[in-house]
Amino acid sequence: MLVDHQVGLLLGVQDPEQELLRRNVVALTKIAKTYGLPVVITTSADSGPNGILLPEISAELPDAPVIRRPGEIDAFDNAEFAAAVRATGGDQLIIAGISTDVCVSFAAQSAVASGYQAHAVLDASGTWNQLATFAAARRMENAGVTLNNTVAVAAELQGDWRKDGGQELAGLFASHAIPFYEPLIPYVTVPNQCA
Amino acid sequence: MLVDHQVGLLLGVQDPEQELLRRNVVALTKIAKTYGLPVVITTSADSGPNGILLPEISAELPDAPVIRRPGEIDAFDNAEFAAAVRATGGDQLIIAGISTDVCVSFAAQSAVASGYQAHAVLDASGTWNQLATFAAARRMENAGVTLNNTVAVAAELQGDWRKDGGQELAGLFASHAIPFYEPLIPYVTVPNQCA
Amino acid sequence: MLVDHQVGLLLGVQDPEQELLRRNVVALTKIAKTYGLPVVITTSADSGPNGILLPEISAELPDAPVIRRPGEIDAFDNAEFAAAVRATGGDQLIIAGISTDVCVSFAAQSAVASGYQAHAVLDASGTWNQLATFAAARRMENAGVTLNNTVAVAAELQGDWRKDGGQELAGLFASHAIPFYEPLIPYVTVPNQCA
Amino acid sequence: MLVDHQVGLLLGVQDPEQELLRRNVVALTKIAKTYGLPVVITTSADSGPNGILLPEISAELPDAPVIRRPGEIDAFDNAEFAAAVRATGGDQLIIAGISTDVCVSFAAQSAVASGYQAHAVLDASGTWNQLATFAAARRMENAGVTLNNTVAVAAELQGDWRKDGGQELAGLFASHAIPFYEPLIPYVTVPNQCA
Amino acid sequence: MLVDHQVGLLLGVQDPEQELLRRNVVALTKIAKTYGLPVVITTSADSGPNGILLPEISAELPDAPVIRRPGEIDAFDNAEFAAAVRATGGDQLIIAGISTDVCVSFAAQSAVASGYQAHAVLDASGTWNQLATFAAARRMENAGVTLNNTVAVAAELQGDWRKDGGQELAGLFASHAIPFYEPLIPYVTVPNQCA
Amino acid sequence: MLVDHQVGLLLGVQDPEQELLRRNVVALTKIAKTYGLPVVITTSADSGPNGILLPEISAELPDAPVIRRPGEIDAFDNAEFAAAVRATGGDQLIIAGISTDVCVSFAAQSAVASGYQAHAVLDASGTWNQLATFAAARRMENAGVTLNNTVAVAAELQGDWRKDGGQELAGLFASHAIPFYEPLIPYVTVPNQCA
Amino acid sequence: MLVDHQVGLLLGVQDPEQELLRRNVVALTKIAKTYGLPVVITTSADSGPNGILLPEISAELPDAPVIRRPGEIDAFDNAEFAAAVRATGGDQLIIAGISTDVCVSFAAQSAVASGYQAHAVLDASGTWNQLATFAAARRMENAGVTLNNTVAVAAELQGDWRKDGGQELAGLFASHAIPFYEPLIPYVTVPNQCA
Amino acid sequence: MLVDHQVGLLLGVQDPEQELLRRNVVALTKIAKTYGLPVVITTSADSGPNGILLPEISAELPDAPVIRRPGEIDAFDNAEFAAAVRATGGDQLIIAGISTDVCVSFAAQSAVASGYQAHAVLDASGTWNQLATFAAARRMENAGVTLNNTVAVAAELQGDWRKDGGQELAGLFASHAIPFYEPLIPYVTVPNQCA
Repeated sequence: MLVDHQVGLLLGVQDPEQELLRRNVVALTKIAKTYGLPVVITTSADSGPNGILLPEISAELPDAPVIRRPGEIDAFDNAEFAAAVRATGGDQLIIAGISTDVCVSFAAQSAVASGYQAHAVLDASGTWNQLATFAAARRMENAGVTLNNTVAVAAELQGDWRKDGGQELAGLFASHAIPFYEPLIPYVTVPNQCA
Repeated sequence: MLVDHQVGLLLGVQDPEQELLRRNVVALTKIAKTYGLPVVITTSADSGPNGILLPEISAELPDAPVIRRPGEIDAFDNAEFAAAVRATGGDQLIIAGISTDVCVSFAAQSAVASGYQAHAVLDASGTWNQLATFAAARRMENAGVTLNNTVAVAAELQGDWRKDGGQELAGLFASHAIPFYEPLIPYVTVPNQCA
Repeated sequence: MLVDHQVGLLLGVQDPEQELLRRNVVALTKIAKTYGLPVVITTSADSGPNGILLPEISAELPDAPVIRRPGEIDAFDNAEFAAAVRATGGDQLIIAGISTDVCVSFAAQSAVASGYQAHAVLDASGTWNQLATFAAARRMENAGVTLNNTVAVAAELQGDWRKDGGQELAGLFASHAIPFYEPLIPYVTVPNQCA
Repeated sequence: MLVDHQVGLLLGVQDPEQELLRRNVVALTKIAKTYGLPVVITTSADSGPNGILLPEISAELPDAPVIRRPGEIDAFDNAEFAAAVRATGGDQLIIAGISTDVCVSFAAQSAVASGYQAHAVLDASGTWNQLATFAAARRMENAGVTLNNTVAVAAELQGDWRKDGGQELAGLFASHAIPFYEPLIPYVTVPNQCA
Repeated sequence: MLVDHQVGLLLGVQDPEQELLRRNVVALTKIAKTYGLPVVITTSADSGPNGILLPEISAELPDAPVIRRPGEIDAFDNAEFAAAVRATGGDQLIIAGISTDVCVSFAAQSAVASGYQAHAVLDASGTWNQLATFAAARRMENAGVTLNNTVAVAAELQGDWRKDGGQELAGLFASHAIPFYEPLIPYVTVPNQCA
Repeated sequence: MLVDHQVGLLLGVQDPEQELLRRNVVALTKIAKTYGLPVVITTSADSGPNGILLPEISAELPDAPVIRRPGEIDAFDNAEFAAAVRATGGDQLIIAGISTDVCVSFAAQSAVASGYQAHAVLDASGTWNQLATFAAARRMENAGVTLNNTVAVAAELQGDWRKDGGQELAGLFASHAIPFYEPLIPYVTVPNQCA
Repeated sequence: MLVDHQVGLLLGVQDPEQELLRRNVVALTKIAKTYGLPVVITTSADSGPNGILLPEISAELPDAPVIRRPGEIDAFDNAEFAAAVRATGGDQLIIAGISTDVCVSFAAQSAVASGYQAHAVLDASGTWNQLATFAAARRMENAGVTLNNTVAVAAELQGDWRKDGGQELAGLFASHAIPFYEPLIPYVTVPNQCA
Repeated sequence: MLVDHQVGLLLGVQDPEQELLRRNVVALTKIAKTYGLPVVITTSADSGPNGILLPEISAELPDAPVIRRPGEIDAFDNAEFAAAVRATGGDQLIIAGISTDVCVSFAAQSAVASGYQAHAVLDASGTWNQLATFAAARRMENAGVTLNNTVAVAAELQGDWRKDGGQELAGLFASHAIPFYEPLIPYVTVPNQCA
């Protein structure tokens, strides 16, 4: 579930920094593709200042359903969205969005109330100040939501680097989630780099 | 409940930064007006260095009762204040103030002890250092207080942007609680801005 | 001269922080009104992502000329702008804008080359990173531009607080340029505040 | 209980900043004097690099017992110290020291295990990095210790500013725990300051 | 248990800072030697960009078993590693590694699930951003892992500075875990330093 | 020359941090006493929100002339002040104040224009943001003012620690300008501290 | 001139942050392509820990000469490099690299000594700490080098957004040098975004 | 010239951070050994709180003359020190010390006044706050001192990595001045690291 990762909202994020958030969101979309996870996307008032869905999400997941909510703040208050999530058949939800304290927190708490296990991906979500992140994290955890982060979500899905997806995962860590990784790759892949 | 948002105390706040706190306090007063929530205001020793109530609160809420406590640190120790809160008829209290670790923490814990559900709005409250915020948050949560933040409080009250109050809420987010929002509005409202 | 203080550009400023910049820009417009200084405003590609002029500038200075540059990066390359500046009759220019390293730096250097004395107001201007601010400041200073800041500009114009404008200046310092000032005013103006 | 507030250890504190810690420790000693609380002080290896007890503590509390532990890391492992604490007759302990993660954490956990209610004063304690503070806070809280801070401890002891001690408390807040308070006092006490 | 402290992974750590992490890892290896604790080391894909085990660990603990995992992300999924841990005969595990949110968190949770008591040493572990540290700490604590830090681990093992190991521990605090300590030692050991 | 070190202005200083500024101002007053330097003090609108002279300055220098300027922003525009400075007979001026960019910068530039050698003590002065400090420093230096700092000013006055004043200077460094120094003194002065 | 932008060196950069540096380096390569500027690239010991040239540079500029220096620290000490620069026929050099204080500073000073006008692009260069950046900037400026930054370099080359290259430049600002710009573009280009 | 790098003074350094300073000082001593540069060391009041010379300097340079100044603040005021410097026969001096604003600044200015070329190594020197560093840097530069940093000093001495000293210099960069470098070395030197 990607909730309200919209171009306008991104420009207001103060915690974490916007570039880190953007890298992790793209990483999450690629993780979903790598593991064949169904993705449900939603936006809120995307013809207003919130802006459209981040173009990099549309580009990565052109076939994922995008529910454009006309007004509901908690995505699960939108019947179409709730149905799309139910249609995935899963009972574990990985949730990220903007803002952590509203779109993510409300949806994650509703997910738990609806019987799902919910993971909130803190570093692929963002909000307006650090105290908002902290209060939201506490509320979500008290409601039964598991706090998580992008790399840990992927690593848990992969389990063993030798399984299918290992190469792809390493690649997207390098290019997106853990940018320090990319400069290291030539040391073991470029012939003239190895003495 | 707005507890001891006084001009002198504001000048000592170190966490969060003073401007962020001030914007959120004004947003809270406007949220109260938008949703018709009764507000009880209190100050402590306001003829001393603590200073008078923030003038922007008085301007926004000229009719709200202001209980000037002569000495009680926990606002619920003041009978007039406790009665004013009881007179609102509500069982859920939204509390913000200066300082987070004393005025907010003591009142929120007393509110829970008196049978109210209490929400402490961390980013509309402030205190002297980050460890004080952290210790107060832990004490309040252990006592049964819900940690919250300004934007999440408002979003929960609104529920759906199409309901009454939606326009006002978007406006006050833009002007106060989430300042990045204001520059985005012309993109969708000014004709010559849209190609 | 206010150069390219546009809503979109504002959202990208990293140095100084956006709120500080916005407060100082509004303060500068009020300073201009207080002292009757002619103001020339310009924007760049304001129907594109740069966005329109900050609405608070339009509101403060509805009668100031706004030259919408169709493409020139250095405002003095635009004949209409250069003429508008010349028409003010002054030989000292106070320049602020976004970004410090392009719009402000290029215009300030051209101003000096054209024989004006130019002051670049660093804290009413903004750019993308601290090294850009630093490099621009060094280039401007080496070209003969005086580095300045909002409060110092105003104080130099006022000279003596007893002259005309002193009250207004104190007020706008309180409300905009130096926000700590506002909480202090009640201590000396509110009767019940003084023991 | 003041545990190992020694001159050498102070010089290694990284969280919180050393000056803030030092001001809060002095405030705690004055709070103890104001409310007549018995204080038990202990040091560890004070003829070695840890250094002697902070001279400002000795100056404030010349008559408090100082147990110089020859080696025990947990102060309650020292029989003389445990007896001195027991001799105070109290069942609530307020604990601060250096370092938060060892001297404070171990003693506070032992205090709870011995049947005391223990408050760890986080901002009058210090340690080597923020993760150490965080881990220690979690361990203490899980063991039943209450996390607290200097100003909240004092405010809870005072309860009402009109009771004995109120003047003294305001004074020591001004001079030590909340330094912003001191500049505000002249506004309400100096005649020519009040218009 | 030292999990994936590898040269490449170290270069990506953002929380805590890399030098602090490196000092604490070396301190942990010396603590293990001082107290004769069995150490099990593991690496992941150490011929790829993750890089080899930190040479300072190999130098300190040349005889410790190093299990080079071919792919398992959770070290306890590797039978050889699980057996090596079991062979130590202990029921308390002290775990540090890179990254906190994957290698440490997964292993620590598996350790608890296998019946061990597990301590995660936060400041001898590192990861890619602060929200990842925070989410991992919450998940570990909720799973029954004790959060800990380098100096507290050592102090708990030592218990009393007069016991065997006290001199060594003070020395390694000085040289590694608490670097401020080293400059203080000459004051009490160098004759001409003492007046 | 101490220019406008007033209680209200202090509360607005953002660069450097207020406590550091306050310690350095007190250190400067003690330096003046130690070396018998004449001090001329001035305040601006001290019955308004700027507030009265910092009480610690009055306490240290009860006999120094205090010129209360009725409105002049540049202190040298006040004839009484200019005369008091001239009456000291010196040709080198050491200047500190609030704010760096107005009171210090204008006075220091006027001092140079009047033929004095002027030293601006940056860390005993303060202002509203870092860009203001930077712009002011550049303007002052271009006008011929020497940039300086509290400890360097004192060290240059002392020259040799064995001369008169050395003991006092070390003491005030310890208690004010360089607070880390105080904890070190017991190592060489307390008998049981020296092994 | 791109000097020693190598994968290993990148991993050590502390000022500015590595991601900002990387974005600006790619922007510079695209700026060179947009304006048809000849580029001379050099690396130092690229089969050792310094690592190979950043792959994103090779990908952008596959035909640019890359001089692999066998040992010379100042690139102009390498005859092949000096010849390649001379062969470009230009007299203005734009220089960026790692590190600012060695590769950039030495080459830029030599360039000036050889009669070129040299621009050092500070935010496309990086080094080990902020004092190193500062010292290098001062040395370069004193030697006659112009300090510059990525966006200002491009804006000066473009001059007018309507000239050839304007579209490309806006695009690469959006995708690389000024990342806030990208989210704004849909507001003026996506039909359903414009009300 | 290493001026007053003493254990007590180190503990007070705030800019740059102490560990960075310490690493660079050791790097400088090793640079001196590598290139056979004569070193003159001096300390001030080393039997008082300033403490003894950093033991790592004594260990690296056991034969370098150490002039223990009895009181002179400017090292060149001490005849023995001035003679020792003259005895080296050099006319270029590389100076580092604590504090930047006194010991380094005064000695470097005197060196220039005595006809030497002086380089002040900013990142191997330290002082009490950033404004002190800034003021000292400006004073030194205006007096003719060249601002420099540890790595640039060494690189200029080496000139070409193939000359004598190149291997040693790379090694000490790795272990001291640029710590990120050490983890990279195994990639090109450990056989099983290279695929």
